[in-house]
Amino acid sequence: MGLVRRRSTAEGRDRWPVEQRTYRGEDGPRGLKQIVVGPDDGAPNFAMRVFQLQPGKASNEEEHGHDHGVYIMHGRAKVLLGADHHEVQAGDFVWVAPDERHSFESLGPEPLQFLCVVPAWGEPDAERLPPRPTA
Amino acid sequence: MGLVRRRSTAEGRDRWPVEQRTYRGEDGPRGLKQIVVGPDDGAPNFAMRVFQLQPGKASNEEEHGHDHGVYIMHGRAKVLLGADHHEVQAGDFVWVAPDERHSFESLGPEPLQFLCVVPAWGEPDAERLPPRPTA
Repeated sequence: MGLVRRRSTAEGRDRWPVEQRTYRGEDGPRGLKQIVVGPDDGAPNFAMRVFQLQPGKASNEEEHGHDHGVYIMHGRAKVLLGADHHEVQAGDFVWVAPDERHSFESLGPEPLQFLCVVPAWGEPDAERLPPRPTA
Repeated sequence: MGLVRRRSTAEGRDRWPVEQRTYRGEDGPRGLKQIVVGPDDGAPNFAMRVFQLQPGKASNEEEHGHDHGVYIMHGRAKVLLGADHHEVQAGDFVWVAPDERHSFESLGPEPLQFLCVVPAWGEPDAERLPPRPTA
C-alpha cells in the first residue's frame, strides 16, 4: 500500500515523519539525512532521500556502481561530476552517472537541502536491502 | 557522464532544457510533462519526470506494475491511493505502490507541479526503454 509523507517545518527546517539520521563524515556531523521513501517502506525500485548540509559542509568525494538523481530543494551547491565542478541552486537537477566521481558542497548562506534518488539496492541505511538486479 | 539540468523560469513557469511534452487526456491538454532525467540520458535505473497540471485537471485513474515516488514541488493536489483520497501540498511526498490505483488532481489556485520518479522501465515516453529486470 502506498503512503503520504507530509512535510513539517520546525525552526525553519523541513522535516518528514521518518527517522532523522545524522549525516556524518570524518570531520563530524555534517547535517541530516532522511529516507522519505525506501526499501523499508516496501518500495522495490528506488529510494528517495533528503539531505540537509550546513554551509561549508560537503559530502565525501566518492563513486558507486549506481547512479544518483538529485533535485536541489533549497540553497546552493558546488557539485563535482567527474573532473568538473558546477554551481547549482534550488530548482536545478543533477544526474550522477554510475561509477562517476562526485561530491556536493553546501555553499550557503542557508543550508543546502536536496532530494537524492538512488536505486533501492543503493541505499546503504535500509534494513531490507534488495539485491542488485542482474539484468 | 552525468549532467546538470538547470531550471529557468518564464512567465512564472518552471522549465528545464529538455523536450516539453503536452500532457494530454481524453479531455484535451491537461498540462506539461518533462523527462528531466531518464533512459534517453543513459540513466539505467530510474526516470525523473516533472508534471505541471492546470487547476481542475487530473491524471487518469490508473495502475501499473511499477511504483511512483512523487514530490509536490508547487501547488496542492487531491491524490487517490487505492480507495482513499488525500490532500497534499508543496513539500509533501507520496509513494504509489506497484499495481495501486492512483490519480493526482490539481486543486489550484496555482498549477500543480510535481516530480514523479519511476523505474527506468516504467517511462513510456523514453525512446530507449530498458527491459524490466527479472530479479
